[in-house]
Amino acid sequence: MRPTLLAPLVATLLFSTVVFAGDPATPATPAKPKSAQELLDASAPADWRTLDPANTLYLDLPGGRVVIELAPGFAPAHVGNIRTLAHEGYWNGLSINRSQDNFVVQWGDPAEEDKDRKSLGSAKAHLPAEFSRTSEGLHFDALPDHDGWAPQVGFSDGFPAARDPESGQAWLAHCYGTVGAGRDVAADSSNGTELYVVTGQSPRQLDRNITVVGRVVQGMELLSVLPRGTGPLGFYEKPGQRTTIKAITLASDVPEAQRVPLQLLRTDTPLFAQVVEARRNRRDDWYKVPAGHIDLCNVPLPVRAPPKP
Amino acid sequence: MRPTLLAPLVATLLFSTVVFAGDPATPATPAKPKSAQELLDASAPADWRTLDPANTLYLDLPGGRVVIELAPGFAPAHVGNIRTLAHEGYWNGLSINRSQDNFVVQWGDPAEEDKDRKSLGSAKAHLPAEFSRTSEGLHFDALPDHDGWAPQVGFSDGFPAARDPESGQAWLAHCYGTVGAGRDVAADSSNGTELYVVTGQSPRQLDRNITVVGRVVQGMELLSVLPRGTGPLGFYEKPGQRTTIKAITLASDVPEAQRVPLQLLRTDTPLFAQVVEARRNRRDDWYKVPAGHIDLCNVPLPVRAPPKP
Repeated sequence: MRPTLLAPLVATLLFSTVVFAGDPATPATPAKPKSAQELLDASAPADWRTLDPANTLYLDLPGGRVVIELAPGFAPAHVGNIRTLAHEGYWNGLSINRSQDNFVVQWGDPAEEDKDRKSLGSAKAHLPAEFSRTSEGLHFDALPDHDGWAPQVGFSDGFPAARDPESGQAWLAHCYGTVGAGRDVAADSSNGTELYVVTGQSPRQLDRNITVVGRVVQGMELLSVLPRGTGPLGFYEKPGQRTTIKAITLASDVPEAQRVPLQLLRTDTPLFAQVVEARRNRRDDWYKVPAGHIDLCNVPLPVRAPPKP
Repeated sequence: MRPTLLAPLVATLLFSTVVFAGDPATPATPAKPKSAQELLDASAPADWRTLDPANTLYLDLPGGRVVIELAPGFAPAHVGNIRTLAHEGYWNGLSINRSQDNFVVQWGDPAEEDKDRKSLGSAKAHLPAEFSRTSEGLHFDALPDHDGWAPQVGFSDGFPAARDPESGQAWLAHCYGTVGAGRDVAADSSNGTELYVVTGQSPRQLDRNITVVGRVVQGMELLSVLPRGTGPLGFYEKPGQRTTIKAITLASDVPEAQRVPLQLLRTDTPLFAQVVEARRNRRDDWYKVPAGHIDLCNVPLPVRAPPKP
């Protein structure tokens, strides 16, 4: 016996029973509920999308590569600046300076004084705050469940997001893996050089208070295991404790053969809705009480290597 | 400029304005809102409780000590067995065998076969499932906010918990740091030897599906940074990747001078309600849009060394 806490991610879907017209006396047998994995295994190529190299960052650390998808639909000015910074090698040789348990890791220029900081090159020093955007024209697939943080939550372009029909605004949500732009007290004090990644319980109180620029789609385990800093806010107290950034590169600046080919499950398909439902109500033998609910930040966002042709 | 994403945990409390009877023409000046830290700094000794050594486990790893508070009010049979196992040194020399990113770490006997497993000594091999308990006679302080996972959520004996007035049941919630007893498919297949700790986004779908035995009150950063296992479910694939457990000891089995003196903020006081409110609506200069909400697993549960007399 080796209790494992959880059987592999077995989860099921309640199919609606199909009753054929003209044969009312013979109800069809309810289909055996499919697990999330079975749903994914039966997915079609159109259920997946390929990462756009122009919106993909490679964060190369001594331990390996972290892949980040940028969100130009929500933070166009920040993403534009980040593209410039990456293209010009701004972060190469800088470091991860902060790891606060159950909160974030953060990287950028560790210099305390302005005069000691690395030049921004042709990137802009000042950007507008991009905390939210109009929801007009935005594709948004709402989750069925209530969320106390926002009037509506769901997915937009594959990102966990929220929407307020009253104000007509939408914004990206802070979940595990969300990437944002650190700022000072002034709302417009971020320029995209200081980036953080959520490594703990979703700090949704940050939503609409800071500019979200993307999310980690591969390699979170390289960031989440970094030793926690012992200074205030989890900053490292000694330079030697920081993790050096080998390079942050825009995928489109890398020859195609050197890119990481990745596909992400689309969030605007019937299949995705079925996967969500399979996780809202897990009906495998291990679960005794299906939750009948899921929080935005508990929804899995599957990533895969493209299947071989 | 060194953007820090967040000012220190500045958060505020909305005091109700006091208007003195007989002087309606002179409304009192609203008190300056206090931050959570200011509230804690002004706390009284009675706002804190001391860990009970009989319900405290020390998990000693090569990197340091993790302190766990057990929850006998919710899992009396499991806690009883865990006390016996610790008292008899069951885990000493065993290992942490699993670390799954954004989910759990888990320890116990790594042996695959029953015949190779360590003797349980005088601990019981079989225990009842303790997924929930009657809420009768249970002190429960409800949070003001809605939670999609349970009819009511709040705190009981300092633990994040949930309650269903209709069924009359209460249970402990899976938040960051929650400790539970791994099991197989059968509900009553846990014996307390395989323990897991939540190291990621609150997996509340486990609530009422597994026995929660306590929570980590100090040293989470020793568990959360463990390298993720690359096998299924985050199990380590090679024995050398496991972290050896030096010892798991019941604090009451340790001479008093060698115990870790810790106090925890009580969750059944007006002060705690004020701290929660200060985090529901952060009104320092950094936050532009206070959330007006908090999720159960975002509520801080402060721990401190006892103040010097």
